[in-house]
Amino acid sequence: MTDLWLVGIGTGNPDHLTLEGRRALREAALVLIPRKGPGKDDLAAIRHGILEAAGAKAAVAEFDMPVRDETLPYGDRVDHWHDEIANCWSDTIARSDVAGPVALLVWGDPGLYDSTLRIAGRLSPAPRVHVVPGITALQALTAAHQIPFNTVNGAVTITTGRRLRDHGWPGNAETLAVMLDGECSFLQLPPDHLTIWWGAFLGMAEQVLESGPLDLAAPRIVEARATARARHGWIMDTYLLRRDIPS
Amino acid sequence: MTDLWLVGIGTGNPDHLTLEGRRALREAALVLIPRKGPGKDDLAAIRHGILEAAGAKAAVAEFDMPVRDETLPYGDRVDHWHDEIANCWSDTIARSDVAGPVALLVWGDPGLYDSTLRIAGRLSPAPRVHVVPGITALQALTAAHQIPFNTVNGAVTITTGRRLRDHGWPGNAETLAVMLDGECSFLQLPPDHLTIWWGAFLGMAEQVLESGPLDLAAPRIVEARATARARHGWIMDTYLLRRDIPS
Ligand SMILES: C[S@@+](CC[C@H](N)C(=O)[O-])C[C@H]1O[C@@H](n2cnc3c(N)ncnc32)[C@H](O)[C@@H]1O
Ligand SMILES: C[S@@+](CC[C@H](N)C(=O)[O-])C[C@H]1O[C@@H](n2cnc3c(N)ncnc32)[C@H](O)[C@@H]1O
Repeated sequence: MTDLWLVGIGTGNPDHLTLEGRRALREAALVLIPRKGPGKDDLAAIRHGILEAAGAKAAVAEFDMPVRDETLPYGDRVDHWHDEIANCWSDTIARSDVAGPVALLVWGDPGLYDSTLRIAGRLSPAPRVHVVPGITALQALTAAHQIPFNTVNGAVTITTGRRLRDHGWPGNAETLAVMLDGECSFLQLPPDHLTIWWGAFLGMAEQVLESGPLDLAAPRIVEARATARARHGWIMDTYLLRRDIPS
Repeated sequence: MTDLWLVGIGTGNPDHLTLEGRRALREAALVLIPRKGPGKDDLAAIRHGILEAAGAKAAVAEFDMPVRDETLPYGDRVDHWHDEIANCWSDTIARSDVAGPVALLVWGDPGLYDSTLRIAGRLSPAPRVHVVPGITALQALTAAHQIPFNTVNGAVTITTGRRLRDHGWPGNAETLAVMLDGECSFLQLPPDHLTIWWGAFLGMAEQVLESGPLDLAAPRIVEARATARARHGWIMDTYLLRRDIPS
């Protein structure tokens, strides 16, 4: 049986890697690296840099990510795509002809808005899976702003840009963390009594931060986001919104 | 001005430390370690182990955590306690007579249900604060169970045992992550259509895991928790609850 290590690598800062992650990369016989994805070259370069810094001696096999079949309805499309990626992994492993543990470098933490575990679950024969937690974009965000994630004993809801657009502010949430938002969905919220902490390219040399009362910060964020995106050709950003609690 | 490093150390596994955290500990001139807290000796031992493994050469100053003044109303009590801890840090730093960066080892991530940032904000003169993100108990939980934190594009609410008892299941939440629960508050939920993934001492040699449909898993968790708690004299546990989505 193959050991498959899903290694959370953090969000762009090679020093987000944990000692556990570094050990897994050092002990891997083969590392799979996808060739396509947003910010293609940048992200592949970061992965190679992490492997080098970790002192990994594994064989590295790049593979082309299959493209989604946009003719299928959404649910089927994702299912079918995950099947195809699983096939890709199997083929790449088989072709590599290497014996020993296989590792995948997973952006951030393997549990948070990531499909790697679902894809791994499709492999047959089933490998022995190991998950190494990694620093998420949300932790990189709160660390960069030096803010607590939650208020004292308060709750936090983590959601996506699409859900925020479709459903608005969730019920009586106090703190909202938003990921996967390509459209500055915070612009659709009534800005009163909301504070935002926003960050792009968190943990990376390109890191950009903005924060403040939502009405004042929103135009600054829109501009900073457009500028950073134009400069790099792609962007990854996330933000935390907190409702002022009347005291 | 003093540099103050708040270093997230993960949740008990010394290999949760990131390369960034290790560097901060290596460069620290002084490390402050609290002598009191839940699981007192165990937790202090873990901190010393992490420093040693990191190759830290810093002076280590232990300090006694002030006790909360239970005669004050809750809000004041916490405020006053944080003031006292800040004073403790200042005194300990002054007494240590060491020049250079000061580091604090923060359990998990410094942003998640932790007061270190709020206490650091009380120091005067204000130090230059640096926050190093760390692996949280929630990431250790999902990694141990090899489950995704969220469903595909789904939201997750992170809350406390007290809030779950006081407010019940929050609105139309799909996934709920519960921390700081000393009372198995999941017992108060109608168990139908809920799945639970529970873990105690995550990342540590003592790690215990249970999972399943809530009605079946709840009694197993109550028992495993009592056994582990009796054995170690203390316990730290957390869990994820997911509502079955009718398909
Ligand atoms: C597919 S999700 C993967 C999340 C990842 N598993 C994690 O733990 O952070 C991608 C989203 O994460 C956020 N993200 C990831 N890396 C980021 C970074 N360096 N800076 C800002 N946002 C980031 C963005 O919201 C992006 O849309
Ligand atoms: C005061 S909070 C600190 C959380 C920490 N900052 C983090 O990022 O995980 C303490 C709570 O975290 C959870 N916790 C921390 N370490 C844990 C561990 N090793 N296993 C299980 N739960 C843990 C428990 O729910 C506990 O009540």
